[in-house]
Amino acid sequence: MENKNNIGDYNVGDLISLKTKNTQYTGTVMPSLDKDILVIKMKNGYNIGISKDNILSIEKIEIGKPPTYKKPEINIEKRENLKNISILSTGGTVASRVDYNTGAVHPAFKAEDLILAVPELLEIANISGRPLMNILSENILPNHWKIIAKEIKKEVENGANGIVITHGTDTMHYTGSALSFMIDANIPIVLVGAQRSSDRPSSDAALNLISAVIASTEPIKGVYVVMHGESGDTFCYLHEGLNVRKCHSSRRDAFKSINNIPIAKIFPTSGKIEYLREVNKVEDKDNEIKINTNLEEKVTLIKIYPGIDGNIINYYVDNNYKGIVLEGTGLGHAPESIFKNIKYAIDSGLLVAMASQTINGRVNMNVYSNGRELQKLGVIPCQDMPPEVVLVKMMYLLGNYDIEEVRVLLTKNISGEITPSTRFDCYP
Amino acid sequence: MENKNNIGDYNVGDLISLKTKNTQYTGTVMPSLDKDILVIKMKNGYNIGISKDNILSIEKIEIGKPPTYKKPEINIEKRENLKNISILSTGGTVASRVDYNTGAVHPAFKAEDLILAVPELLEIANISGRPLMNILSENILPNHWKIIAKEIKKEVENGANGIVITHGTDTMHYTGSALSFMIDANIPIVLVGAQRSSDRPSSDAALNLISAVIASTEPIKGVYVVMHGESGDTFCYLHEGLNVRKCHSSRRDAFKSINNIPIAKIFPTSGKIEYLREVNKVEDKDNEIKINTNLEEKVTLIKIYPGIDGNIINYYVDNNYKGIVLEGTGLGHAPESIFKNIKYAIDSGLLVAMASQTINGRVNMNVYSNGRELQKLGVIPCQDMPPEVVLVKMMYLLGNYDIEEVRVLLTKNISGEITPSTRFDCYP
Repeated sequence: MENKNNIGDYNVGDLISLKTKNTQYTGTVMPSLDKDILVIKMKNGYNIGISKDNILSIEKIEIGKPPTYKKPEINIEKRENLKNISILSTGGTVASRVDYNTGAVHPAFKAEDLILAVPELLEIANISGRPLMNILSENILPNHWKIIAKEIKKEVENGANGIVITHGTDTMHYTGSALSFMIDANIPIVLVGAQRSSDRPSSDAALNLISAVIASTEPIKGVYVVMHGESGDTFCYLHEGLNVRKCHSSRRDAFKSINNIPIAKIFPTSGKIEYLREVNKVEDKDNEIKINTNLEEKVTLIKIYPGIDGNIINYYVDNNYKGIVLEGTGLGHAPESIFKNIKYAIDSGLLVAMASQTINGRVNMNVYSNGRELQKLGVIPCQDMPPEVVLVKMMYLLGNYDIEEVRVLLTKNISGEITPSTRFDCYP
Repeated sequence: MENKNNIGDYNVGDLISLKTKNTQYTGTVMPSLDKDILVIKMKNGYNIGISKDNILSIEKIEIGKPPTYKKPEINIEKRENLKNISILSTGGTVASRVDYNTGAVHPAFKAEDLILAVPELLEIANISGRPLMNILSENILPNHWKIIAKEIKKEVENGANGIVITHGTDTMHYTGSALSFMIDANIPIVLVGAQRSSDRPSSDAALNLISAVIASTEPIKGVYVVMHGESGDTFCYLHEGLNVRKCHSSRRDAFKSINNIPIAKIFPTSGKIEYLREVNKVEDKDNEIKINTNLEEKVTLIKIYPGIDGNIINYYVDNNYKGIVLEGTGLGHAPESIFKNIKYAIDSGLLVAMASQTINGRVNMNVYSNGRELQKLGVIPCQDMPPEVVLVKMMYLLGNYDIEEVRVLLTKNISGEITPSTRFDCYP
């Protein structure tokens, strides 16, 4: 292995002890994508990356065996009584497989890889699959949403009865919203991720994937997100693709339905699914799919805070933006100090919409004078949609309708993103 | 009453029926601060404001009696066995009193008004009070935080044993953070608000205020927030002034402690308080108070989303900003597409800090390559602080320390804003 700092020799799989200025670490050398970073797996199961510049010395404790993993041959026969599910991977950690000799994580993109990693899938459906891209979800852009929608359409036209999209968790809820607006399909499309990579004993990857495949064989239509329902391994939740949100940076049960309860509990070990509320059932027609991937990307999201400089709004106006989503406070408020900037944006022809940084609850801009004034300026109150959904919805609407139509459609339910009244039992 | 549109005569207190193009409303005319808006209280208890431009006609159903409320004389004697609590009001709906004849809401700023509205307070403490300002909290600016801190200092120097600040709820958690950093006091300072105005049967104002006064008589020190603990009227929660957040736009239990459990349950009817975890006890010395109101206001908060235009960062650099808080995704990530802008900001001498839009959980920028790359650029991972707290903390630190000190202090606990490890039971 390349070792530019002359800090000692080592290879992937070796057990080493290394010293930095302040600390000493012991662990197994892991593959690293960054040649300047040495990654070791420590006894507690965590991987740690250390800049080679900071390593003073390395001592080899035990020489590792070279990786022994060889891909076994696998013969997957299609069974007539099972549905055909297509798993499309976009990146993230959910679809990966560990070589237990080295601890190295291999991306498991093809159907065979997935089945080797999670053989239980074979019992649930006829699995096929292919990689669409290999992108950490923090790098997903609106253009990737379009690619995913188009590839889903191809799979459905080739006979898939259900789709599973493996996706990094960081922005999975943005992608879920985008696909919900872009796709009109008569099958389930299920996004799934993992909070802990497959090389950790606490990984949620396998159970999330099994639950997602179970959901994709259900007689439901539309876009969904499947993730762990609690911190144990008993069940996953089936959420709508819209109005779901990553609400914790690391917990397995990070995803929460917002302003509604989840649709169902999925028990991956028994294969059972327990519906908690109504869901869109498939219709008695072919696996029709229509997509509309037009998006206006000149839309921004601005979070309001005390002392915010209103000129940031002028910046977007002057840079030819078409829409602004304000993540306001409380029931949908913004400081009076930026009213003149909001007026400038609206007078310049931009749409300005309001969602709330409280995340939970509904915007109501009739209660206080601040909200009424903002409405007078032309700010559009966006009901009970989380700010992230309003952002994606505005991108979609401005890509397809003229501004006066968008103004109306923003406050109407078009894909399940607005509920007329919020259940009392959906706030944690 | 002025009636520019010639839509009929009416006075405050009258029961009227009015017609707009699409609807008819019946209710009692309420005082309105906006001469172009007619406010009526409907039978369901809600107030509704209607632009006079949209009113086609008004029919008077019943003439109201003129308001009969006269302020009674009240004689408050100081009792030696009770603590001296000073209630300072900043605005918002918590400290207001209803004239039940007209339904009009009168601000109750002085001690007598508060005691008339909530006479139970007299049993808990010797109450004094005065208004500092009358501002809806969406309009609170960093400069108001300074005024509040200075006025608290005056009250403590004049013998107050505890302080209650009534505050609008929209930005109460930002003010709580600011006061936590600015004030070093040996007494409790309790922020309190209400989600429902006092003129509604479901108002939480009285019980929140009683609970706040109970908390202000406890032998604890520091800044706190008191709000309803559940949707009923059984208890309020005592939260830290830091790491608490308005998480619902309208519910009475909108405020949640983030990355920790609340400090205590307060039962306003029995006056009991049940501590749930350790708290800072008052020290055996006088009611010392030190404040430091220096703030650098050229700090901004940018929420990351797929497709964000990195040039927004350049805008802040070019407008002489000193610090940027990124509200990143997941464990503290940002798209690679804006790395060059982040580098530009850091190369230009700005501090760039990372918090997570998941709100719950801790930033960890060592797990994925994205976080490691951002750290290499110089982005500072901000532990388990919510983005709003990082914003206020950076304003405070840059107002008081040079940039290299701030870089270190941002990741250290200085006022209770960082916990070394997060309790498992604090995620809903």
